[in-house]
Amino acid sequence: MISQTDSFILRTHGKGTYPITKEIKRFVGQAGIKDGVATVFVSHTSASLVIYENADPTAREDLHAYFEKIVPEDNPDYHHTLEGPDDTTSHLRMALTRTSEVIPIKAGVLCLGTWQGIYLFEHRREPHERTIWVNVMGQ
Amino acid sequence: MISQTDSFILRTHGKGTYPITKEIKRFVGQAGIKDGVATVFVSHTSASLVIYENADPTAREDLHAYFEKIVPEDNPDYHHTLEGPDDTTSHLRMALTRTSEVIPIKAGVLCLGTWQGIYLFEHRREPHERTIWVNVMGQ
Amino acid sequence: MISQTDSFILRTHGKGTYPITKEIKRFVGQAGIKDGVATVFVSHTSASLVIYENADPTAREDLHAYFEKIVPEDNPDYHHTLEGPDDTTSHLRMALTRTSEVIPIKAGVLCLGTWQGIYLFEHRREPHERTIWVNVMGQ
Repeated sequence: MISQTDSFILRTHGKGTYPITKEIKRFVGQAGIKDGVATVFVSHTSASLVIYENADPTAREDLHAYFEKIVPEDNPDYHHTLEGPDDTTSHLRMALTRTSEVIPIKAGVLCLGTWQGIYLFEHRREPHERTIWVNVMGQ
Repeated sequence: MISQTDSFILRTHGKGTYPITKEIKRFVGQAGIKDGVATVFVSHTSASLVIYENADPTAREDLHAYFEKIVPEDNPDYHHTLEGPDDTTSHLRMALTRTSEVIPIKAGVLCLGTWQGIYLFEHRREPHERTIWVNVMGQ
Repeated sequence: MISQTDSFILRTHGKGTYPITKEIKRFVGQAGIKDGVATVFVSHTSASLVIYENADPTAREDLHAYFEKIVPEDNPDYHHTLEGPDDTTSHLRMALTRTSEVIPIKAGVLCLGTWQGIYLFEHRREPHERTIWVNVMGQ
């Protein structure tokens, strides 16, 4: 059994979902384990994780549009808006999606379904450098 | 320390929540570990996981009704609807709940609360075969 | 490699978010591992977990207000209301946030970002004793 924790930086340029499946698969390959789990963790409160449909781009467009609607920026009720209209909304959108995701590994391969892609969900308008932590554990 | 990854198929027949606690407990029992964690992972983008109230059936009926309301099918704004009105909505409902869930194991037993049941949340109208991966890790 | 599962009790006094980062860090320190993951799990269906902004109190006030709005108590559609208007709503709010969260450990330290705090999200009005399970695993 081994445990290997590492991180990488993803540069984002505005709201939306950014594919990170390849990077996670690379970490799993490097660890060289056959059976175990990969933990993905975003160490930010205005970006999150989502595993989503990876084939049709309109699927993710609907996701982006849905979050604009369910957590609208133009809401006079918000108080935590010092950094702009995408301040408190970015935290709320993060809370509704995920900060950590754990994916089993079998025969050295991540057990993702055919249509599953792992995405960083950026909730901020401005460019950001996002740190994503990956732990691979198993034997 | 050992790591054991396996999967099982659940046949669904329309939208709703399907109990899978027994299957997860069986995997934990078979692994024979005393202390560790069990990771549950659904490898689909139109079904998800939720740990929910397991005693009163109306609790889960309220859950089903709530998701029909918060992610309604009859929304003209959706673009990813090639497979019907339950296409993009199934992905959105999945994104709002969970794809992975990790439950600690103590004294050989899953640390679930009295009222906690593990459920697959099916978001599609048609019957489906859903693959659920389970990793049990510990000592 | 070791695995160490333990729990602690948090006393809540009404709806809101309660910081538990210090307790989780204490468990990680006691386990004495350098590389691994910490799994946090709430064994209740009317309380949940959220990793949220830890600096400005108004951020969490916006979170609380948002959940009152997106899962309102005064909804005549609910059926599971035997224990009051905060009964079914507490389960729905739990389903929209998290029951488990997994955080990587590197060089003996939890890989939390500067602004990330771990919180128990209490959805009940009355005081409760909440059990939080923590598994620390690694080498």
